[in-house]
Amino acid sequence: MDRVGIIGGTGYTGSELSRLLCTHPDAELTVLTSRQNAGRKVSDVHTFLKGYSDISFTEKIGDTKGLDLVFVAAPHGVAMGEVPGLIDSGVKVIDLSGDYRLHSAKKYSEWYGHEHTDQKNLQDAVYGLPELFRNEIKRADLVANPGCYATSIILACAPLIKAGAVGEDIIADAKSGTSGAGMVPSPRLHHPFCGESVIPYSIGTHRHTPEIEEAIHLFSGIDTKVTMVPQLVPILRGILSSCYMKLKEDLSREDVSEIYRKQYGGEYFVHYVEEPSIRAVVGSNHAHVSSNVVNGKVVAFGVLDNLVKGASGQAVQCMNLMLGIKETAGIDTPGLGV
Amino acid sequence: MDRVGIIGGTGYTGSELSRLLCTHPDAELTVLTSRQNAGRKVSDVHTFLKGYSDISFTEKIGDTKGLDLVFVAAPHGVAMGEVPGLIDSGVKVIDLSGDYRLHSAKKYSEWYGHEHTDQKNLQDAVYGLPELFRNEIKRADLVANPGCYATSIILACAPLIKAGAVGEDIIADAKSGTSGAGMVPSPRLHHPFCGESVIPYSIGTHRHTPEIEEAIHLFSGIDTKVTMVPQLVPILRGILSSCYMKLKEDLSREDVSEIYRKQYGGEYFVHYVEEPSIRAVVGSNHAHVSSNVVNGKVVAFGVLDNLVKGASGQAVQCMNLMLGIKETAGIDTPGLGV
Amino acid sequence: MDRVGIIGGTGYTGSELSRLLCTHPDAELTVLTSRQNAGRKVSDVHTFLKGYSDISFTEKIGDTKGLDLVFVAAPHGVAMGEVPGLIDSGVKVIDLSGDYRLHSAKKYSEWYGHEHTDQKNLQDAVYGLPELFRNEIKRADLVANPGCYATSIILACAPLIKAGAVGEDIIADAKSGTSGAGMVPSPRLHHPFCGESVIPYSIGTHRHTPEIEEAIHLFSGIDTKVTMVPQLVPILRGILSSCYMKLKEDLSREDVSEIYRKQYGGEYFVHYVEEPSIRAVVGSNHAHVSSNVVNGKVVAFGVLDNLVKGASGQAVQCMNLMLGIKETAGIDTPGLGV
Amino acid sequence: MDRVGIIGGTGYTGSELSRLLCTHPDAELTVLTSRQNAGRKVSDVHTFLKGYSDISFTEKIGDTKGLDLVFVAAPHGVAMGEVPGLIDSGVKVIDLSGDYRLHSAKKYSEWYGHEHTDQKNLQDAVYGLPELFRNEIKRADLVANPGCYATSIILACAPLIKAGAVGEDIIADAKSGTSGAGMVPSPRLHHPFCGESVIPYSIGTHRHTPEIEEAIHLFSGIDTKVTMVPQLVPILRGILSSCYMKLKEDLSREDVSEIYRKQYGGEYFVHYVEEPSIRAVVGSNHAHVSSNVVNGKVVAFGVLDNLVKGASGQAVQCMNLMLGIKETAGIDTPGLGV
Repeated sequence: MDRVGIIGGTGYTGSELSRLLCTHPDAELTVLTSRQNAGRKVSDVHTFLKGYSDISFTEKIGDTKGLDLVFVAAPHGVAMGEVPGLIDSGVKVIDLSGDYRLHSAKKYSEWYGHEHTDQKNLQDAVYGLPELFRNEIKRADLVANPGCYATSIILACAPLIKAGAVGEDIIADAKSGTSGAGMVPSPRLHHPFCGESVIPYSIGTHRHTPEIEEAIHLFSGIDTKVTMVPQLVPILRGILSSCYMKLKEDLSREDVSEIYRKQYGGEYFVHYVEEPSIRAVVGSNHAHVSSNVVNGKVVAFGVLDNLVKGASGQAVQCMNLMLGIKETAGIDTPGLGV
Repeated sequence: MDRVGIIGGTGYTGSELSRLLCTHPDAELTVLTSRQNAGRKVSDVHTFLKGYSDISFTEKIGDTKGLDLVFVAAPHGVAMGEVPGLIDSGVKVIDLSGDYRLHSAKKYSEWYGHEHTDQKNLQDAVYGLPELFRNEIKRADLVANPGCYATSIILACAPLIKAGAVGEDIIADAKSGTSGAGMVPSPRLHHPFCGESVIPYSIGTHRHTPEIEEAIHLFSGIDTKVTMVPQLVPILRGILSSCYMKLKEDLSREDVSEIYRKQYGGEYFVHYVEEPSIRAVVGSNHAHVSSNVVNGKVVAFGVLDNLVKGASGQAVQCMNLMLGIKETAGIDTPGLGV
Repeated sequence: MDRVGIIGGTGYTGSELSRLLCTHPDAELTVLTSRQNAGRKVSDVHTFLKGYSDISFTEKIGDTKGLDLVFVAAPHGVAMGEVPGLIDSGVKVIDLSGDYRLHSAKKYSEWYGHEHTDQKNLQDAVYGLPELFRNEIKRADLVANPGCYATSIILACAPLIKAGAVGEDIIADAKSGTSGAGMVPSPRLHHPFCGESVIPYSIGTHRHTPEIEEAIHLFSGIDTKVTMVPQLVPILRGILSSCYMKLKEDLSREDVSEIYRKQYGGEYFVHYVEEPSIRAVVGSNHAHVSSNVVNGKVVAFGVLDNLVKGASGQAVQCMNLMLGIKETAGIDTPGLGV
Repeated sequence: MDRVGIIGGTGYTGSELSRLLCTHPDAELTVLTSRQNAGRKVSDVHTFLKGYSDISFTEKIGDTKGLDLVFVAAPHGVAMGEVPGLIDSGVKVIDLSGDYRLHSAKKYSEWYGHEHTDQKNLQDAVYGLPELFRNEIKRADLVANPGCYATSIILACAPLIKAGAVGEDIIADAKSGTSGAGMVPSPRLHHPFCGESVIPYSIGTHRHTPEIEEAIHLFSGIDTKVTMVPQLVPILRGILSSCYMKLKEDLSREDVSEIYRKQYGGEYFVHYVEEPSIRAVVGSNHAHVSSNVVNGKVVAFGVLDNLVKGASGQAVQCMNLMLGIKETAGIDTPGLGV
């Protein structure tokens, strides 16, 4: 039984990690930090854990001895202050923020608006998308867990780019449930504002853009240009990203689907389907990919639960790989369906 | 053309007042205050007013000369600081907060947690529910606009109480859309928290409770005891209050409906219906009342749009009465239906 | 490994059973019937099962040899045609419809509008609410799985009735997500109709009423009168039932909560909480119970996921008991939280 | 006072027409047909009309004498059976279906799957988008009211195409509320299916595609290729279409917005805004257009209420033009905002 901790256990990704880990057969959550909830029982704050957890939040992680891995579920900019110490103490780390997703410190400061203070680990961090970088993750000490939008878009686009089937220009019209924006109340997430609307934001400036381009490059060797338009839709969980790419040759829908099936045929968590469904994957670590061919373009869909395959579930998947546990352990449940 | 102003034009009730007044045939909105938006064009903040309003927000109402009436759409406790000066300057006032709804300063401090600082006007204020107190409103200088829950519950219960058909014990299980809670983001109104839930709050302690008891007393001479359980439901606009009262004699559904029809048959905005529908009244100043008889009890429903008949529409209806304008002017539109 | 089948695998309760059983450690779903989908792979219809199931729908259950238990997830009136044959062949049965929930054939025909054709098994059927009737379920050959509303209301009311703390008159104002109404499209479940509304229906006539009264009687020996008002709210999964009962003596909130804690303190799936939360139980077999005291009344809440603890999860819990499996097997996951 | 009728008054567009016409100052709704509701009072079926309408549904329109204009709000394929008779009797007609939107009978049969039986009137029909074809509409006897998606996409794209600012290749990723799909219950609009999802459908095959291309051609003389991906989102009313077009020269966001402002600066119902908002236009005939420039592309948004500017409101706007009434009469209300 491996022992793991979470830095930042109050927010949605930390809370979701606790939900997944509390029934994990091979890993035990032994420490969970929270500044605001330090001292309180975890199951009094996250009442869905009633019966599943006896531990209380602590201010800090304290001694890392006895810990095999720590998840950092803190806001951007915080993780790079925590990671160096953890790595130095010999514990493996999965960071769920954006701090270690870009390999270039220069690009980081361009997109995140401040300097990167841990360039050493930035070099070594592995992008935690198992379907593309499984072997690298197995060997990694530090994994940068991908963004939710990014995972959905990369899964839908990378195979076609690598196969040379489409051009380098990607339009990603992405729709996300509101839980993707985190647990801090704000005008945009205020129910009367967003509950019956579709709200575009960060048009062309969303920070997942460079990690998509970088991951696709690492996977395929090809440089792409991603035009990303995120939009909030009034659902709690789920992302559907509609991706538009120009075909380089005259391929049918069947030809295109064949590329996906070849890429994902052996995967447990990624499925090519004729009709993508958010509800079929909600609550689970599964993702759907689907595609159509229209007017010489591929319209590809990437669908997942932003808190599971788009965040904490994928992090557990990475943890399993890093610790030599069965890849599906603790996250082997189907989506809700309804 | 009467000239009116609004103190507090940024929040939902102030914003809704501006929406209703911008096409009012007999009243002109000439001043709209907002601390945070002072100096900005109203239509840049409330973009639904594009083409309807050229005025800008001001810090204060300034000179009241030339104003016939002022709406105070500020939080509880603020209005009683504004009202005395307005009344003294000879302008009529409609207060949309709870500050003038209870006639007893003692009861006010019990339910609102602080002293009332304007007991003089508190005595004179008229409760602005036209279907019950039309004549009093016509003569009033200060109207306390009813709460949204209160309006729905009073409309459903008062006729039966007055008719002596039911006992004095009222259970009001009330469901409200989230806009009733105002525009300030908070954890309870955070979409990921409330978007797929039903959230009871202020159980037995909601401040609309005493105004319901007081209004029913004024109307019927009968003292009631209201057990009120408010619950947020994930809709934007609309309240459905389910009210339970014990029948004092053996009346059929038809007998009960007859009492309502007698009360509301001549009303323009309140309708007795077989099946109440939130959507039929949303966007309008209309309300539905409906009832069933089960196990010797009446199950009565009061349905309205919390921002219109439950707040700003009712305020305009009161304004019309106070200024001698046709009662339906500016609010004579049907509900959306869908 | 026990082997089980489902009659009626297309609808929501059958589909949810397949979701829960596909990862059950001690039971294997070997046959799943569907008239409309016979011959199709289950995972092509229920795409959330991709990777979890290789079986195809069949027209009929065929040979029951080798089956330990069959779930009947068919509409009311269908089950009583299927059950006698199954019971006679020696297989245990859990019926998820209302066919076997009332012990009196007379009462059945009053509430369901047609005669009961299997009075023999009707006598023997056990009401499948483990927290109240665990021992009876263990010994049963035929379990009538409780209704979703009924489970939420019984859990909230039965302990107080049995303790003699409250009177026999129960008002149950129940709010349900739309999945409780099944998968057949209808005007009431049409999104533009119900998506921004609260819709009361079957006021005082809902068929769960008599099973609530009967189960409470069996548990406590006390006859109650339930006034039930079901209301659809625009959420997918979840029920919150607000139950009103008059206190017989002067008890505090703490006193009342103590009764619940005594009843449910040892239960794995039912939790007394200060603030009930639909999201904390959605996707899980857990239920929340909570209570307040107002004006000499208890306001009690029963909260659960209508498809899990309100239907298929509870059915699996019963199956575990009937087959001697660990009670929590296959349903031991926390709610989603968000 | 002009007198008008509606063929098909039960469905959403017919019902919405009745809502708008019931307070129209210069037009009176005198006849409303419905096969299923013939004989019933309109306000008993559309309860939002309580107090606004005394007429009853009739089976047929009967005598057209005394009618100035008839709206046909019937399914595709039905209108072309009704229109010839109406036109021959000298009454003006606005058809809200797709029957008269395409000028080529050949294209009609390609996209609608059956022959057009009224090619004569098909030639003469005017596409009822006043902001583009106001003068033609004024002179028309038969107006084909545009589709809801089509209106949102044309308003967002046509000005840039005409100005030569962008290429001919348009990607329209369109999100619609569910009321756009009509009032007939179906699996896709079943709340448990669509209430927490985003559902792409008719990818590249939606029938609004050719009318967009045709309207833009008529307006600009330029042939475009539209790749349209409609997606249902769980809101009742509202469309947000995200349109992607490649810039032909290096224009800034300001340059692009200038083109829109020039086009729509004098319009009452179309507004260029920095941040588009569905809620700002819901319930009204107003539309928002907005744009950004990213990676050499324009990302343009067209936003409207699908039942008003996307259907019945636009039809009333056309009626006003055809009958010489003030263009804004009966539809001069701001959006709800919240």
